[in-house]
Amino acid sequence: MRSPDCGCSAAAAMTKDEVLIDLIVKEVRSALQAPAARRSAARQATRPASASPTIPLGVSNRHIHLTQKTFHRLFGEGAAFEEMRPLYQPGEFASKHTLAIVGPKLRSIPGVRILGPLRNYDQVEVSLTDAFFLGIDPPVANSGTLNEAAPLTLVGPNGSVYLERCAIVASRHIHMPGADAARLGVRDGDLCKVRVPGAKRTVFENVLVRTNDNWRLQMHLDTDDANAANIREETVVEFLGRM
Amino acid sequence: MRSPDCGCSAAAAMTKDEVLIDLIVKEVRSALQAPAARRSAARQATRPASASPTIPLGVSNRHIHLTQKTFHRLFGEGAAFEEMRPLYQPGEFASKHTLAIVGPKLRSIPGVRILGPLRNYDQVEVSLTDAFFLGIDPPVANSGTLNEAAPLTLVGPNGSVYLERCAIVASRHIHMPGADAARLGVRDGDLCKVRVPGAKRTVFENVLVRTNDNWRLQMHLDTDDANAANIREETVVEFLGRM
Repeated sequence: MRSPDCGCSAAAAMTKDEVLIDLIVKEVRSALQAPAARRSAARQATRPASASPTIPLGVSNRHIHLTQKTFHRLFGEGAAFEEMRPLYQPGEFASKHTLAIVGPKLRSIPGVRILGPLRNYDQVEVSLTDAFFLGIDPPVANSGTLNEAAPLTLVGPNGSVYLERCAIVASRHIHMPGADAARLGVRDGDLCKVRVPGAKRTVFENVLVRTNDNWRLQMHLDTDDANAANIREETVVEFLGRM
Repeated sequence: MRSPDCGCSAAAAMTKDEVLIDLIVKEVRSALQAPAARRSAARQATRPASASPTIPLGVSNRHIHLTQKTFHRLFGEGAAFEEMRPLYQPGEFASKHTLAIVGPKLRSIPGVRILGPLRNYDQVEVSLTDAFFLGIDPPVANSGTLNEAAPLTLVGPNGSVYLERCAIVASRHIHMPGADAARLGVRDGDLCKVRVPGAKRTVFENVLVRTNDNWRLQMHLDTDDANAANIREETVVEFLGRM
């Protein structure tokens, strides 16, 4: 056994294995020497999975964002856009309003909820399971990036619209206040990894970090991701760091 | 810097940090000292994803296995069990026959195909997406392990059966001939990891290795796993070694 503060001098020529071990030991040492908060997080990452820093998980079912103009076209000029219940992120809410979405297979998914507040673009976030059912081929994209989005027809009580570029499979992402980002050692725009433990243990990669001090720390996965990882109740994910 | 073969004597009392570092170094050393095949696989896990060995992927949609007795009950005593097309694994086939499955929400999924040959147990393999739709809570289980399986009603053209323990979410698994298992450094019953690259890059863990020289090398994921990883066409997975 060796002490981590062993004072032996480095071997002049290290084998590949030695280089690997040395890198790992450096990583561990660096983590152990970090400030208290980060130190705690980094330590956890080297322990059994359950000890990693955790992030509350929100599973996003299919949903719709609309402009005020499209909302009025579908619900009537005089219709008021009303809140049903608040969401986890401050200021965001599930509205009282739902639509049917119809794709080129002429199959419909009814009851797709519109989330508020109203936005400056129309967007439908679906899972790939939904996309196959509807017969569309939406890109994996960040919210608001609609240049390659797929077409859908949205049907409301007062009319319908055919939106040529509205449907995406939303990228996995984490909403992070700046303080959490600092604690976890990541920045806005970083891609990172998270693990869901359990019988269908899964590591989700290419998870986008989005920082904003108005948000609460929360990971968003779609229903395909959640079902693949066998998530059946409210849970947290293990944060595994940057890619 | 310290050489991994540093000969310093152990500190009599190690701190928690030192114990942690020691454990990690032991793990790394043990991996590096493993037999050649396994060592190679372990090393590859540290390389870029694209250099890992690959395994053809088969995506399993919901399907049914039946006993001869149950088949005759649902299709009639005189019915012949007929092949529609062969599957990738030698001797296995999609039959011409489908059933509707109905759960406690009294919602039905029609057209669920029976795979052949007939077996000595009745089993319905569903995704968790299907399970939520049907209103059942099936375990994640290996094929044939039905002691905790969920109930479903199966409806055929000649009758129906209520099976109290039939529905499972099948564990992720890889069919491996012995030679492939040896090449990849794993044995029957091992749990391993695979990665699907792409926009929704995903590492599937707890993947069961099943070896049989009559099989062809193939990974099986269900539709939730495949859709979570954004698999839209035939592909291969990257083998990342044992867990």
